[in-house]
Amino acid sequence: MDPLAVKNLTGLVAATFTPLNPQGEINLSVIGPYIDYLIEKQGVNSIFVNGTTGESMSLSVEERKTLANDWCKKAKGKMDHVIIHVGCMSLKDSQELAIHAAQIGADGIAVISPSFFKPRSAEVLRTFLQEVASVAPSLPFYYYHIPAITGVNVLVRDLLEDIEKVIPSFRGVKFSGSDLMDFGQCLSYSQPQWSFLYGMDEQLIAALAMGANGAVGSTYNYIGSNMNELISAFEKGDIAKARTIQFKMQELLSFAMKLGFDLGVNKQLMSVVSGLCLGPPRLPVMQCSDAHALSIAEKLRRLFPEH
Amino acid sequence: MDPLAVKNLTGLVAATFTPLNPQGEINLSVIGPYIDYLIEKQGVNSIFVNGTTGESMSLSVEERKTLANDWCKKAKGKMDHVIIHVGCMSLKDSQELAIHAAQIGADGIAVISPSFFKPRSAEVLRTFLQEVASVAPSLPFYYYHIPAITGVNVLVRDLLEDIEKVIPSFRGVKFSGSDLMDFGQCLSYSQPQWSFLYGMDEQLIAALAMGANGAVGSTYNYIGSNMNELISAFEKGDIAKARTIQFKMQELLSFAMKLGFDLGVNKQLMSVVSGLCLGPPRLPVMQCSDAHALSIAEKLRRLFPEH
Amino acid sequence: MDPLAVKNLTGLVAATFTPLNPQGEINLSVIGPYIDYLIEKQGVNSIFVNGTTGESMSLSVEERKTLANDWCKKAKGKMDHVIIHVGCMSLKDSQELAIHAAQIGADGIAVISPSFFKPRSAEVLRTFLQEVASVAPSLPFYYYHIPAITGVNVLVRDLLEDIEKVIPSFRGVKFSGSDLMDFGQCLSYSQPQWSFLYGMDEQLIAALAMGANGAVGSTYNYIGSNMNELISAFEKGDIAKARTIQFKMQELLSFAMKLGFDLGVNKQLMSVVSGLCLGPPRLPVMQCSDAHALSIAEKLRRLFPEH
Amino acid sequence: MDPLAVKNLTGLVAATFTPLNPQGEINLSVIGPYIDYLIEKQGVNSIFVNGTTGESMSLSVEERKTLANDWCKKAKGKMDHVIIHVGCMSLKDSQELAIHAAQIGADGIAVISPSFFKPRSAEVLRTFLQEVASVAPSLPFYYYHIPAITGVNVLVRDLLEDIEKVIPSFRGVKFSGSDLMDFGQCLSYSQPQWSFLYGMDEQLIAALAMGANGAVGSTYNYIGSNMNELISAFEKGDIAKARTIQFKMQELLSFAMKLGFDLGVNKQLMSVVSGLCLGPPRLPVMQCSDAHALSIAEKLRRLFPEH
Repeated sequence: MDPLAVKNLTGLVAATFTPLNPQGEINLSVIGPYIDYLIEKQGVNSIFVNGTTGESMSLSVEERKTLANDWCKKAKGKMDHVIIHVGCMSLKDSQELAIHAAQIGADGIAVISPSFFKPRSAEVLRTFLQEVASVAPSLPFYYYHIPAITGVNVLVRDLLEDIEKVIPSFRGVKFSGSDLMDFGQCLSYSQPQWSFLYGMDEQLIAALAMGANGAVGSTYNYIGSNMNELISAFEKGDIAKARTIQFKMQELLSFAMKLGFDLGVNKQLMSVVSGLCLGPPRLPVMQCSDAHALSIAEKLRRLFPEH
Repeated sequence: MDPLAVKNLTGLVAATFTPLNPQGEINLSVIGPYIDYLIEKQGVNSIFVNGTTGESMSLSVEERKTLANDWCKKAKGKMDHVIIHVGCMSLKDSQELAIHAAQIGADGIAVISPSFFKPRSAEVLRTFLQEVASVAPSLPFYYYHIPAITGVNVLVRDLLEDIEKVIPSFRGVKFSGSDLMDFGQCLSYSQPQWSFLYGMDEQLIAALAMGANGAVGSTYNYIGSNMNELISAFEKGDIAKARTIQFKMQELLSFAMKLGFDLGVNKQLMSVVSGLCLGPPRLPVMQCSDAHALSIAEKLRRLFPEH
Repeated sequence: MDPLAVKNLTGLVAATFTPLNPQGEINLSVIGPYIDYLIEKQGVNSIFVNGTTGESMSLSVEERKTLANDWCKKAKGKMDHVIIHVGCMSLKDSQELAIHAAQIGADGIAVISPSFFKPRSAEVLRTFLQEVASVAPSLPFYYYHIPAITGVNVLVRDLLEDIEKVIPSFRGVKFSGSDLMDFGQCLSYSQPQWSFLYGMDEQLIAALAMGANGAVGSTYNYIGSNMNELISAFEKGDIAKARTIQFKMQELLSFAMKLGFDLGVNKQLMSVVSGLCLGPPRLPVMQCSDAHALSIAEKLRRLFPEH
Repeated sequence: MDPLAVKNLTGLVAATFTPLNPQGEINLSVIGPYIDYLIEKQGVNSIFVNGTTGESMSLSVEERKTLANDWCKKAKGKMDHVIIHVGCMSLKDSQELAIHAAQIGADGIAVISPSFFKPRSAEVLRTFLQEVASVAPSLPFYYYHIPAITGVNVLVRDLLEDIEKVIPSFRGVKFSGSDLMDFGQCLSYSQPQWSFLYGMDEQLIAALAMGANGAVGSTYNYIGSNMNELISAFEKGDIAKARTIQFKMQELLSFAMKLGFDLGVNKQLMSVVSGLCLGPPRLPVMQCSDAHALSIAEKLRRLFPEH
C-alpha cells in the first residue's frame, strides 16, 4: 500500500509528554499504559510524538529515536496516526530522524521551523522543509507552525504556494498560531489530501468555525474526551454547547495561568490527572510543586466532574 | 428616558474615516452622504466615530468636537448608535471630550488605553477609564482594546472584574485583539446589558463562534453588506456560507497587504469604492497613489461583484 | 541677534518634572525654586521642558503652554538653554505649541516621533518634523529619539540625510536609544552647529566614548552634580574615575528597578531628594508610596554622600 | 598545571566561521591556514569556536566534536586561547560536548542559554549552566549572552550572583547585548580571574569605556588588525583615534546592512577578504551572491586601505 494513500489526519491528536524516570532518563515503561489511557479514557486515537510538549529540543537525537520507536511499536494496531516530529535546529539531525521515522513505520513526520537561525522568507523555510522531506519521501509530511515559540512569522499561506511540487509528500500543517486570517487562507487553498490541525487548544472553536480539520495539543492528553464533545457539538451545529465546553476549558487554563503554567506544570498536571508517572521535565524546564499541579487538577475536576 | 436603558449595541458598526479636504482640514460636507451610503449601500446602521480609522490621535481636541457634533447631528433619527471615541493620551482631554459627547447627544462613548505612558496593570487602566466615564455618567461606556497598536496587553477579563461597581455606565468592549481565550472569558463573564464587539474584521467568523455580539471595523465601510450576509449565514447555522464570505474577504485583505495596506491606503480605498471624497490622511499617515487604491478596489469588485 | 546663531547645546540638560498640586493641577509656584535648585545644587544650566519626564503626553495643549511660558520666563537670564518639547500625537497640536514656543522666547524646540500612528520610514518622519519646524523657523530644532517608548525604530542617521535642506533650523538630537552604532554614525556625519545629546543616563560614559556632545535626562535633576563630575573626569582622560561614578549611578538605578522604578517613583524621588514639592503624577502613571521613594533616596545618599 | 590558573582571556577573540566544502560538509583542510591568517594578518591570537558565527546550531554533535578537535589540535602552541562553545538546546548534548572539550585540551568552554525552552529566571539559567560546567570542572567556563538571538533577557548581573559557588570554574562572559548598564554592573562586580568580553563589534569603544576586558566577534576575522589598533589607541588615552576607527567600522557595517548582511553574507565576505575557501553556509542560512560579498569587500578596502 502506498503510505501516502492513508486517510487524512483529522480529529483530536494528543501531543504527548515524554516520560522520564526520577533521574531524568527516558522511561519507556509508561508508554504502553499512556497509549491505552488516551484511547480508553480520552477517546484520542492519534498522537504527535516528540513535539514541543514532548520536550524534543531537550532530548538527544538518540533519545528521540528510542522514543519514536517505542511509541510506534506500542501504538501499532491501536491508534490511527502516529506522527513523529523530527524538527531540529540542525538539518542533518532532522534528516537522520526522518530516515529513522520511515524505518520504524511512523504514519507521518512533522517539522518545525529552525528558530536559532531563522529562515528569512517563506521560500527559505520551504527549502529547509524540502531537504528534510526528501529523505523520507514515502512518509506524509506536516509543517509545524508555532511562531510564538520559534519567532518565525512566515505566513503559512505563502509557504504553501506550490509546495506539493517541491514536497510531494506534503499533507498538512499543525497550526499553533493566532493569525486566523492566515489559517483561513490556508484552508481556502487546501487540497483534498491535506489536513490543517489547529494547535491553540484554548480557542479551538474559533478554528473550527474557520474550517479546521482537527487539532493537535497538549490538553487533549487530559481533557480529550471533553474536547471531543466540543467537536461533536460543533459538527452537529450546536454552537452553544460547543461554546460552553470551550469556556470551561478556558476557565481551567486561565486559572492555571494565574498560578503559573509552563511545560513543567503541564506535565505534572497530566501525571496527577491520568495517574501515569511521567516524571520530571528536563532543564531548562523546571519541575513544579505537587501542590501547584494538584490545585489545577482540582479545578479541572470541578469544571469537568466526569474526571 | 434613561440613556443607559437603550438597547444593546449589536450587529455591524462602521469605524468611520474622517473626511478632510485637499488642504487637510476637516470636511463636514461629506458626512451626510457618508451616513446615507452606510445605511443604503452597506446596511450598516451604527458608527464608531473618531477611532483609529478616524485618525483621532492626529486631530486636535477642537477638531474632534466638531466632528463628533456633526456626525451626531446628521445621524440623528437615521442610525441606531453613534458611539464617539473620546480616548486621548491625556486624561484631561478625554474628560473634555466625554462631557462634550454627552452634550451633543451621543449614544455612547468609547475609550482606548493611553499608550505613551502605559497602564502597568488592569487596575490602573480601570481607574483611568473610570475617571473618564465619571464625567459623563449618563452615557453608555465602552472600552476599546487594541493591543497591537497600544502595546497595552492587559487581559480584558481582568479589566472587567467588578467594573460595573466603578463604572456603572459600562456597556461593553470593542475587542480588536487576537487573544480569543481572553475574548471568550469576557463573553463567559458578560452581563445582559453588555456588548462585546469584535474588531479584527478578517477573522470575524472566529469571534462569532466564540459568541461575539457584533463587530466594529473599518472594512464595514465598504463591504458591510457582505459581512452582514456573513453574520446572517452564521446565525442561521450556515457555517459553510459564512466561511466562504470570510475567505473572500481575507483574500481581499491578503491582496491589499501584499501591495501595502495602511490607514492611508484604506481611506483612499473607501473613497474609490464609495465615491465619497474622503480626502488625504494626515501626517504621519501618508497618502497612497490612486493606482494603488484602484488596484485593490478592482480586486474587491472581482471578489464581490455586486459592488 | 539671529536666534539660530546661539552657542551649541552641550553639557548636562535636566529633563524637568512637571510640578502638580495635590489635586493634580499644575503648580507654577515650584518652578522658580526648581530652577534655582538645578543651578545651585546640581550645576545644571539647561532644561528640557515638557518631555517624557514632564508627562507632556498627559497634559492638555493649554497646560503645556502655561508650563512652557513659566519655565521660560523664570529661567531667563539664569539658564543657558530652555528647550521646549512640543511633540504631540497630532501635527496640529505640535505646530500650535511650536508657534507658542517662539512667542515666549524659548531657546529651542524638540519633537518626538508620533507613536500612535508610526511613521513608516525615515522620510515620512522627516516630513512630519519638517511640518512642525517650519512654523517656528527661527527656533533651533531638535529631534527627540526614544524608540523604546515610541516603537519607532527609524535609524537617526537615515533621518539626518540632507535634513538641513528641509529643516534649516535643525540643530541636533536627544538620542535616548541603545543603538550606539546609529549614534556613532550620527556623530560621524555631524555638522559643527549640531549637538547630539545622549538620553540613557545609565550608560552615559559609553556615549561619551562615542563622542556625545552632552546629555539630557531625568536623573540629572538629582544627581546632576555627580554626573557633571563624570563628564569632567572623562574629558580629562580619567576614564577610571568616570567609570566609578557611572557604576555607582548604575547601582542606584539597579536598586530602584528591583523595587520598581517608573515615572511616578522617579518624580517622588526627586521631591524627596530636592525638597521641592512636585506633587503626584497624573494617570495612567501612578503615585508611589513614600516608603518606596525614601528607600531609593537613602540608597542615593549612601552612594553619593555629598547629598 | 591547574588549567584554571591560566591567564585571563583578554584582547580580541575571533568567533570563527565553520569551513564547509561545496557539498556542505565540514572541510578541515581550511582550519590550519585560517589559524595562520588570524595570527599573521589580523594579529588575533584567540578563537571562539562553534559559536553563532560557526553555525553550531546547524551542526550535529559529531560534527561539532570533529571541528573542536581540529581547531584545538592545529591552534596548539600557536594561539593563546581556544574556547569551544558547547551550548545546545539539549543539556545532554552540551554535557557530551563539554566532556569532549576537556579531553581534547580546549582552553575553555562557553555556553549559550537554551532558547527553544527559555529559562524563566536567572536562577534556572544558572542551574542549567552549572549542570554543563560540572561535567568539565577543570575547564574555564564562560557564559555566552546574546539576548537578541536567544530571546533570554535575564540580567547577567543577576546570573553572576554567587556563581562561583555553584560554578567554581566560572571565568567570565561573552556579552553580546546592548544593555550597557547590565554590562557595567557585571564589571563592577567582577573578580580578578573573570573576563568580560564584549560581543557587539560595532560599538566596542563604548564597551571599552565601560571597562570591557576584551571582545569576541565575527568581524575580528577580517578587520582584527584595525580593531586591535582601536583598542591600543583607547588604552593609550587617544579616544579620538579609537573613535575614528570605530566610525569607519560602523560605516562598513551600515553599508553592509543596507545591502543585506546575515551570516551567509558575513561568511562569504570573510572568504573574499581572506582568500580562504570557507564554502557556503548551511540551511536555513542562505548563501549570498558573489557580487553581494564583493561589493562589501570593496567598501572594506576603501575604508581600510591596508587590506
